[in-house]
Amino acid sequence: MKIDHIAIAVFNLDEGSKRMENILGSKAIVREKVESEGIEAVIFKVGTTKIELVCPLSEDSVVAKFLRKRGEGLHHIAMAVDDMDEEVERLRSKQVTLVGEDPREGAMGRKVMFIHPKSTPGVLLELVETPKGE
Amino acid sequence: MKIDHIAIAVFNLDEGSKRMENILGSKAIVREKVESEGIEAVIFKVGTTKIELVCPLSEDSVVAKFLRKRGEGLHHIAMAVDDMDEEVERLRSKQVTLVGEDPREGAMGRKVMFIHPKSTPGVLLELVETPKGE
Repeated sequence: MKIDHIAIAVFNLDEGSKRMENILGSKAIVREKVESEGIEAVIFKVGTTKIELVCPLSEDSVVAKFLRKRGEGLHHIAMAVDDMDEEVERLRSKQVTLVGEDPREGAMGRKVMFIHPKSTPGVLLELVETPKGE
Repeated sequence: MKIDHIAIAVFNLDEGSKRMENILGSKAIVREKVESEGIEAVIFKVGTTKIELVCPLSEDSVVAKFLRKRGEGLHHIAMAVDDMDEEVERLRSKQVTLVGEDPREGAMGRKVMFIHPKSTPGVLLELVETPKGE
């Protein structure tokens, strides 16, 4: 496994992006709306991984709820897996609790699935099926 | 810059480690006490970066305060920099607020410095001076 991205929930995408630019000394590589998740994201490349700033598009998105409860901050860590079905089977065999029955389609048409925080050290972890070599 | 590690605060290091092992399918590479930070850490290699579980050694450590306030979860993201002094100068020129005046010595004798969350998108960011090629 490798880390695909780290997601940070923010109230204001422009303000958050400006801060990240100042810190990283580089500009974002992508800004996109992911309607299925109810968010807009700005993505920064950091070494071999990415930092994604995510901002809700509506009051009822998962990220909007997170922001109301906890304020801005780290939202989840996504790990790249080669084969989602194989990984899901392996995790279930270890009694790891996943969110939902089956992987669903996330950003860029990739298969994604979340691991429930009760099976992690208190963080939301996402699995993202990533073509090899990416 | 690249991500050196992601730190997750936990109440119980054994329980947290077991969960990470189940998810990653691999064992921790290091378990060490960092007295200067008042924590014990278990470190997992994930691709080219690391996930560190950190647990307080005393009630007055920064991580103990974090756990009382927010519970278990993502604590900070550390970014590797080649030259700390150069980086600190660059960040100050961008009006980025750092915690303290000078870098201090962190784990493994490395120079570390924190960026104040008010200059980030709501997260605590650490800079770690890392020898090239590491």
